[in-house]
Amino acid sequence: MTVATTTPTQAKTSNFKHLKCKECGAEYEAKALHVCELCFGPLEVAYDYDAIRRQVTRESIQSGPNSIWRYRQFLPVATDNVIDVGTGMTPLVRSHRLARRLGLKNLYIKNDAVNMPTLSFKDRVVSVALSRARELGFTTVSCASTGNLANSTAAIASHAGLDCCVFIPSDLEAGKVLGTLIYGPTVMAVQGNYDQVNRLCSEVANTYGWGFVNINLRPYYSEGSKTLGYEVIEQLGWKLPDHIVAPLASGSLFTKIYKGFQEFVKVGLVDEKPVRFSGAQAEGCSPIASAFRENRDFIKPVKPSTIAKSIAIGNPADGVYAVDIARKTNGNIESVTDAEIVEGIKLLAETEGIFTETAGGTTIAVLKKLVEAGKIDPEETTVVYITGNGLKTQEAVQGYIGEPLTIEPKLDSFERALERAQTLERLEWQQVLV
Amino acid sequence: MTVATTTPTQAKTSNFKHLKCKECGAEYEAKALHVCELCFGPLEVAYDYDAIRRQVTRESIQSGPNSIWRYRQFLPVATDNVIDVGTGMTPLVRSHRLARRLGLKNLYIKNDAVNMPTLSFKDRVVSVALSRARELGFTTVSCASTGNLANSTAAIASHAGLDCCVFIPSDLEAGKVLGTLIYGPTVMAVQGNYDQVNRLCSEVANTYGWGFVNINLRPYYSEGSKTLGYEVIEQLGWKLPDHIVAPLASGSLFTKIYKGFQEFVKVGLVDEKPVRFSGAQAEGCSPIASAFRENRDFIKPVKPSTIAKSIAIGNPADGVYAVDIARKTNGNIESVTDAEIVEGIKLLAETEGIFTETAGGTTIAVLKKLVEAGKIDPEETTVVYITGNGLKTQEAVQGYIGEPLTIEPKLDSFERALERAQTLERLEWQQVLV
Repeated sequence: MTVATTTPTQAKTSNFKHLKCKECGAEYEAKALHVCELCFGPLEVAYDYDAIRRQVTRESIQSGPNSIWRYRQFLPVATDNVIDVGTGMTPLVRSHRLARRLGLKNLYIKNDAVNMPTLSFKDRVVSVALSRARELGFTTVSCASTGNLANSTAAIASHAGLDCCVFIPSDLEAGKVLGTLIYGPTVMAVQGNYDQVNRLCSEVANTYGWGFVNINLRPYYSEGSKTLGYEVIEQLGWKLPDHIVAPLASGSLFTKIYKGFQEFVKVGLVDEKPVRFSGAQAEGCSPIASAFRENRDFIKPVKPSTIAKSIAIGNPADGVYAVDIARKTNGNIESVTDAEIVEGIKLLAETEGIFTETAGGTTIAVLKKLVEAGKIDPEETTVVYITGNGLKTQEAVQGYIGEPLTIEPKLDSFERALERAQTLERLEWQQVLV
Repeated sequence: MTVATTTPTQAKTSNFKHLKCKECGAEYEAKALHVCELCFGPLEVAYDYDAIRRQVTRESIQSGPNSIWRYRQFLPVATDNVIDVGTGMTPLVRSHRLARRLGLKNLYIKNDAVNMPTLSFKDRVVSVALSRARELGFTTVSCASTGNLANSTAAIASHAGLDCCVFIPSDLEAGKVLGTLIYGPTVMAVQGNYDQVNRLCSEVANTYGWGFVNINLRPYYSEGSKTLGYEVIEQLGWKLPDHIVAPLASGSLFTKIYKGFQEFVKVGLVDEKPVRFSGAQAEGCSPIASAFRENRDFIKPVKPSTIAKSIAIGNPADGVYAVDIARKTNGNIESVTDAEIVEGIKLLAETEGIFTETAGGTTIAVLKKLVEAGKIDPEETTVVYITGNGLKTQEAVQGYIGEPLTIEPKLDSFERALERAQTLERLEWQQVLV
């Protein structure tokens, strides 16, 4: 049952202990911190996995809420007073028509384009971040966003009654701006790209006592993405897939799906096996794909120029970790052009009836490219992650999807239009055949 | 586990037997028929409830797929070869902030704005209709639509590999047109209102061998809405609510939620108790609300003129049945102005973080109106049905939701903007207080 509650209840055991530097291992109290004071490495949440193993079974998870909070023991919250707006447990769709088109036999689509409440995977990370923000006493929450995160932070802050101020680049798609304003937050449209927005927010975070979900709350926030790993395991019938393909922006999602898989192995919920991790970027902002291709261990920041604005991060915080995972799992990181992204959106819509935004078009286009290059085995159980909804980036496909046939409300008007349409279709086919 | 399959499997027992006239009781074979030849009454699907009672338990439902197909025994399909794209099992959210604002103690929001795949309750009816269309041998499917139905029919037809031609009024919102075209169907934009579109489609249905989901397949199609009743019962912990509020277009949804509740009582899945049914219309198209108010047993068709296009049906097929249900359950049917609809959209977004389209704004505005008129008891367990997503009707709120504050990527530029925003807010508060 997915019934959201924000009423405080007694705390269950909490399994998260402290923050730990991903680079040097230094430990910190579980406060609003994200950078190691010793080595400037990113901080990550550490858990007591022995405790989790004792508490959690497949059955206990299945009888939990129909949302990410069924995995509560693996998430960094100290109380049961979590914000559950029904986020997560989005469908895992077995693909038939796209799979056939690509020549794959076991393709699945994890569809966060219908995530609750704001139709992107960001609802996962924000649900966790704001639950933790409230525990830490924040009353104003904020974020640096390429659009989806602003939607999600504003919506979930509304639900929870928190004040909210979001920062976005000023050139975002109309649907993403309106899809933030509707919840009534303060919206700062910054004349610059995401990386400039992000730098400004770091300064603001140091000055104001606000909880920035992806800055000072980042260690908690990013843990929410692990649920995209857990759910796939559960929805595959408690099995790991052979191969996953996911979009890369900061690289965080990618690394957290990986962490989610590992954790379920660690506590005995699923049998271990190798999973290949492949990542997708837009050519107009592909610093992680470049590092992978050039076999580098560092990221060269770039200035983004692509229609895939939601993943246009030129200086990705977790880029090196993403490269490392792709490399050690025998995966790949590829990039595609804006034209291929539009084709990817159309291909998914026309074969599966799923309308995704530009990030999803990128992922589908990369999936296709990897298949054509022989980098995905047709027999592999492959899961492709669709992370956002196409209604938010309508600009990207306008002009590429045809027009309605305008008719009068009369049978003969319809028949003439149908004939025209069929003739056009025949001509198109003849052109294909010639 | 929500894994869609379109692979034929062996048929389970089917519990639906035939079609039956809702007026005179005449029985018909379960073909593509929708009108009684004897009395012109609407045909409805009849079931063997004794068989269902023997087959179904709460546990068997709970262990079914995480979609409407967990209620398969109550749906009019003859085989297991159903189209499951993860439709249904959308969140039932316990409202706190909206409830407090309205002075209600037990308010729940059933949120089909995140339904899979196209973000409206229409995915339920279309999943059922196209599953049945395939069983009946149709290869081309169609519909007369105010927008959401076209989105859904086109998307699910894509997934199932069916040819698709949809009919819409030519003045629909951009998001609804684009959200149909993306799936690659033929789209006929009819210069007329929905009732004219519908009449044209009836002619086409008689001439072409197409499956019109809401015309010749209507008896199967409309059954899909029952799942909005079943899910609420299950998500309330196998209890009926005291009061529901839902939008009224053709009136079909309303009558089918009622049928769903009754069926679960009939087969012993839930204890009987009175449930009040209240309906919501836009003032610019309120033939059902007028009939209710004027205590009529017939509907006077109207010419729609409202921003709530998705519910703008001037000649509603199931209007009289909706009036009857509201009357006999001690409910109400109310209408609200376009301005109140916009306020309803904003109120839901600002208090609950749910962005709904105009139909949802109508429902929230009517909920508010009913509460203010003392027609909803604060203690009642009230469920309000949100049936579609706000990203599809962005035009309706543009100009009513403020603008982002444009700033340079510098701390002092941010600080100046924040100060302006706070001053403005203070002024607004002072105005409120004066």
